[in-house]
Amino acid sequence: MIADKLYSRADKISPVCAGLDTTYDYLPQCIKNEDASAADKIYKFNKMIIDAIYEDVACFKVQIAFYEALGLTGMDAYARTIKYIRQKGSIAIADVKRGDISSTASMYAKAHFAGDFEADYITVNAYMGEDSVSPYYEYIKNSEKGLFVLLKTSNPSSKDFQDIKIEDKPLYELVAEKIQKWGNDFIGDCGFSSIGAVVGLTYPQEFEYIAKLMPNTFFLIPGYGAQGGTGKDIAGVFKNKICGVVNSSRGLICAHKGKTEDYDFIEYIKKASLEMKEDIVKWL
Amino acid sequence: MIADKLYSRADKISPVCAGLDTTYDYLPQCIKNEDASAADKIYKFNKMIIDAIYEDVACFKVQIAFYEALGLTGMDAYARTIKYIRQKGSIAIADVKRGDISSTASMYAKAHFAGDFEADYITVNAYMGEDSVSPYYEYIKNSEKGLFVLLKTSNPSSKDFQDIKIEDKPLYELVAEKIQKWGNDFIGDCGFSSIGAVVGLTYPQEFEYIAKLMPNTFFLIPGYGAQGGTGKDIAGVFKNKICGVVNSSRGLICAHKGKTEDYDFIEYIKKASLEMKEDIVKWL
Repeated sequence: MIADKLYSRADKISPVCAGLDTTYDYLPQCIKNEDASAADKIYKFNKMIIDAIYEDVACFKVQIAFYEALGLTGMDAYARTIKYIRQKGSIAIADVKRGDISSTASMYAKAHFAGDFEADYITVNAYMGEDSVSPYYEYIKNSEKGLFVLLKTSNPSSKDFQDIKIEDKPLYELVAEKIQKWGNDFIGDCGFSSIGAVVGLTYPQEFEYIAKLMPNTFFLIPGYGAQGGTGKDIAGVFKNKICGVVNSSRGLICAHKGKTEDYDFIEYIKKASLEMKEDIVKWL
Repeated sequence: MIADKLYSRADKISPVCAGLDTTYDYLPQCIKNEDASAADKIYKFNKMIIDAIYEDVACFKVQIAFYEALGLTGMDAYARTIKYIRQKGSIAIADVKRGDISSTASMYAKAHFAGDFEADYITVNAYMGEDSVSPYYEYIKNSEKGLFVLLKTSNPSSKDFQDIKIEDKPLYELVAEKIQKWGNDFIGDCGFSSIGAVVGLTYPQEFEYIAKLMPNTFFLIPGYGAQGGTGKDIAGVFKNKICGVVNSSRGLICAHKGKTEDYDFIEYIKKASLEMKEDIVKWL
């Protein structure tokens, strides 16, 4: 089960997930000045980051939108980035938030759990219900793959639908119950399922409550840093056991901005990833 | 407003949307035998279909999952397919069902409303709320683009969340109210907004009720044919005015299967698209 590998890395190395949501603007001038395509420069930047911190973080999350925005060459940089993360023995979470009917979900499974874009985990949106999730099960079982299903997201408008009250419960609590149920068949030795959930760090009290409801669920936690979440916010959730990875994108990969435009940029990113780990573990 | 162009084509030409959810298996032997890559063969098949029926259908929907499943060369076939649909003056709906936080949605807008993958409409998933939709507004206003937001989908598990009752209303009714509200700023001369909704044909009674609630909303309607929907099922929704396009994928692009493996396959697909139109308009 991929959950065992991810839990082990989160527990032994660091609960930090480094988000490679890379845009051209984030690159230091030294890379921008190189004689290469925009996509090649973005890949080079990612590769340098992976080389510098893969032994300091649990995993990497790659947000596909930033690569799609560059078209075909962007998709090539995306594929190479995911591949390099896995080559280094780390875990690649493809943040693709797919969700579609069963026959289409089978195609997404083929796209993101095999071939050019093969990742270890993908994020999925379950608004369409279980048959939009079940086509991934065979890959979870047979190919060491995993899912993170959107539950309570970090953005302000997450309240529009996710917080709607059904009798006394918010909608996201019903989603939580389903995710916990779907995950029951895929629980690893670590006690966590390879079907995890995405819960934003921007609503810490709700998160503590959710985590209690879902003792076998491992979380992908966005919202740290640029979106406002802090290490202290996660302390209540992690108090018994580290049960998730905390993602930061801009907070890490832009750590050099305003400080250097040279190849020593990588030191600022490494330092930021270690400081983020420290900010989380000091509360445990 | 793109809604005016789509409504006009649906009304004057046909309410049929041809779904190019193409897999290699669907190709006739004559194309499989050509000396070309799988992606090139898929593009050739799509191009022959577009050439044959672009004057007979309102628009084309291209399901990106089927192309992602082929990796980088698949994405190239996807880009060329979308581009060719638009070159012929038809409308390309990119069925990507994206949904993410605002900064990421801006990247998806750039990816699918400009550059290599530029389409006329995209499908979006609004589980994350309005800030996952609002980054597209500037493209709707300034670049003749449109959205179809998932409302009540055609798959069996759509009941898992979309049908959950909030007081007396199912969740999808609250989603309907939001979509109608978001669309108010983008209503074209035809009376329909460029923010439309996806409603499956597999629940015809619910659909009639939804259509009454949303008089300014134009619908993308999956579920015809292979999924069980018929022309009669849409009659109640279209009775005053054609207010959507009905998609069929396998029903059209596999119409030649078991009949021919030669280049005359295209006649079967053309015939199927005209028969589908007839099956819908005879009830109006």
